[in-house]
Amino acid sequence: MPSEHGLMSTSRVEAFSDGVFAIAITLLILEIHVPTDNAATDGGLTDARLRHELLALWPSYLAYTISFLLIGMIWINHHRMFRYIARVDGIVLGLNVLLLMDVAFLPFSTDVLALSLRGTSAQHTATLLYGLVLAVGGVFFNGVWFYAAAGHRLLNERITPAEARAMGRRWGMGPVFYLGAALVGLLSATASLACYGLLLVLYFFDMRPRPSHGTGEPVG
Amino acid sequence: MPSEHGLMSTSRVEAFSDGVFAIAITLLILEIHVPTDNAATDGGLTDARLRHELLALWPSYLAYTISFLLIGMIWINHHRMFRYIARVDGIVLGLNVLLLMDVAFLPFSTDVLALSLRGTSAQHTATLLYGLVLAVGGVFFNGVWFYAAAGHRLLNERITPAEARAMGRRWGMGPVFYLGAALVGLLSATASLACYGLLLVLYFFDMRPRPSHGTGEPVG
Amino acid sequence: MPSEHGLMSTSRVEAFSDGVFAIAITLLILEIHVPTDNAATDGGLTDARLRHELLALWPSYLAYTISFLLIGMIWINHHRMFRYIARVDGIVLGLNVLLLMDVAFLPFSTDVLALSLRGTSAQHTATLLYGLVLAVGGVFFNGVWFYAAAGHRLLNERITPAEARAMGRRWGMGPVFYLGAALVGLLSATASLACYGLLLVLYFFDMRPRPSHGTGEPVG
Amino acid sequence: MPSEHGLMSTSRVEAFSDGVFAIAITLLILEIHVPTDNAATDGGLTDARLRHELLALWPSYLAYTISFLLIGMIWINHHRMFRYIARVDGIVLGLNVLLLMDVAFLPFSTDVLALSLRGTSAQHTATLLYGLVLAVGGVFFNGVWFYAAAGHRLLNERITPAEARAMGRRWGMGPVFYLGAALVGLLSATASLACYGLLLVLYFFDMRPRPSHGTGEPVG
Repeated sequence: MPSEHGLMSTSRVEAFSDGVFAIAITLLILEIHVPTDNAATDGGLTDARLRHELLALWPSYLAYTISFLLIGMIWINHHRMFRYIARVDGIVLGLNVLLLMDVAFLPFSTDVLALSLRGTSAQHTATLLYGLVLAVGGVFFNGVWFYAAAGHRLLNERITPAEARAMGRRWGMGPVFYLGAALVGLLSATASLACYGLLLVLYFFDMRPRPSHGTGEPVG
Repeated sequence: MPSEHGLMSTSRVEAFSDGVFAIAITLLILEIHVPTDNAATDGGLTDARLRHELLALWPSYLAYTISFLLIGMIWINHHRMFRYIARVDGIVLGLNVLLLMDVAFLPFSTDVLALSLRGTSAQHTATLLYGLVLAVGGVFFNGVWFYAAAGHRLLNERITPAEARAMGRRWGMGPVFYLGAALVGLLSATASLACYGLLLVLYFFDMRPRPSHGTGEPVG
Repeated sequence: MPSEHGLMSTSRVEAFSDGVFAIAITLLILEIHVPTDNAATDGGLTDARLRHELLALWPSYLAYTISFLLIGMIWINHHRMFRYIARVDGIVLGLNVLLLMDVAFLPFSTDVLALSLRGTSAQHTATLLYGLVLAVGGVFFNGVWFYAAAGHRLLNERITPAEARAMGRRWGMGPVFYLGAALVGLLSATASLACYGLLLVLYFFDMRPRPSHGTGEPVG
Repeated sequence: MPSEHGLMSTSRVEAFSDGVFAIAITLLILEIHVPTDNAATDGGLTDARLRHELLALWPSYLAYTISFLLIGMIWINHHRMFRYIARVDGIVLGLNVLLLMDVAFLPFSTDVLALSLRGTSAQHTATLLYGLVLAVGGVFFNGVWFYAAAGHRLLNERITPAEARAMGRRWGMGPVFYLGAALVGLLSATASLACYGLLLVLYFFDMRPRPSHGTGEPVG
């Protein structure tokens, strides 16, 4: 009889994951509200006051920007990983669903972060939460890779076992970095956010194609 | 003239269904709110208080996790089912839309569940609702399969009539299980939620590819 | 030079439209709220009260169901239409964007409908609005078809000019029906909603494949 | 070893971008609320009052319409651009993510715009913000093109360097226009909105296929 435990094609998993990434990244904006609705309906909202209100939302803009770019980065890495995965089983599906569950949670921790930056004294807790959610996501991400790459069992021929191990070592630094940024947040929220900014700049600049081996790479 | 009653390709139906699954699963996070916005704008939110508030949201995290994984599981089953469906007619489309309507309803029943777990005495009603919504979804799911499999009329050659009946018997246990979990909730909400946890663990672990027939299965 | 006015492939338009349909249909649930959040955080929500609150939301469930099924129906019709469209130009794109703008507006008019059914005396206005939004959507839908079918200029060979005209006549009844249901709402909201229920039952039952010409239809 | 800096296929980037466009455009409706929920639950909402409330929401409908059509236009242009891009690197991905971040921000600036039009005196600030967000998006859009077209490094053979420069000059007018509309808003919000209306009418009408070169265009 047809195996109910049959493998699922990776393209389906990627398409579903893409959907969750795209929705989570776009939902971030729903956490930003103009806090003057009541005043507005009274007709009491002036240009000066609106300008003041909009500027006071800078923590929300900052948190929005960091989270949008980080989710974008995780999405790019997710695609890279699945380029090398030939097939998925229930464990990969389960770990991937856990990863998506973590990604879909980011609008919440982003909201908490923005809230705490609004002149409160709760920034240590908020940056700790923010970093921990990213670290847990990194653990699930690496879980997919280590499970798939163990014995090369679910990988395709685009990558050798040695290359897979090297890739695993590099990706393994992700949760360590996020945990570090979370702990830095216990000392200084500003320093913690600066870590993410630095990570993003390095990430996107490092992806420029290089003459040596960038152009010879088969495209996805 | 071209039949207005023409059949629709299954890939279209699957892509649309995937969209609804991905959106419903990601909308779950919108039900979790930091309940301290007012305090925050007053600058009165401290680390200790935010920590307290975040921990007090555990019912929301629990409900989020269970619903995310259950929707993920239903999505996987939905794909499995459509692997064997060769074509769809209006009845299948209608039943599938009813199934999606039920899935898209889950963020609401999840919210009710989280609400009731927050120290209220409304947990029996909430777990009953939660289980009933899942059971109704299971009925629509099975409705698609039984209608499509009756006389093998809409199935493809990847599955034999006997296999289709066996699959129907297994899937038919879904709504029975959910109804049971709903009724268990009348006695104990904790026991009801434990049922879902057990189901999810069994489901994802059981999908590991097995040497006997897992690897020989055609993919996707 | 490459024409900036070049035509766009229909598959892109369909994929984008599918996205908007799937999102609009799933956002409907966000309009349903448990109205007892405050009571709940006080621990004052009992099983009896939650049951009462959930039952009192029946107008929201009814509006959700009708709108979900209607959007599902419009989505199916949209695919049928695009099966016969060979290429799109700016006018088709513009009319299609207007159609999507109308579809994306439905969660709002659904919310207004549910609100008015909650024991208020504003049902005539709400059902009028609800029907008018659907009628306007029907006008844009027909606009796409009439523009594309005029002189058969944007249609493919799957349909003859005579068939296209017949299809246009049938689809042309859509906005007339919705306008009628809107006007019926001025007399009786119940009668207006019954119209939609009848339409949906007829629509999905009528799509069963019939031996005469259903099975011979090429699947899109 | 496999380059972690490998290029990503443009179809993946387009699919993800499509998702963000479709979600952002559909989320616009969530910013429109019936402001009478309280009255309604008291049963105090009459037809006359609901009619009044619905009409008073005209600024929200206007802002919704403009933003929906503008996002639709940007989506169309985005597809056009990617028809000529052969491959993407980290810089293109980064610039594209920044563009999407701007597009996903539009529901917020749309909300601010609608708010300010509701009889307040904050319209200059709101139209300035609205135009600036569009202008920044235009800068990222052009950034993708100029980076990809410099030395023709990431373009395909569908376009010549001279054509790419001409296209860049035309697209370069986008942010200039939006900046102009933003500044016009400092004098008159009405005039600023009229600019967008004019732009949209010209855009969609100008896309009609023309006998001379429209039909000969290969469709993407």
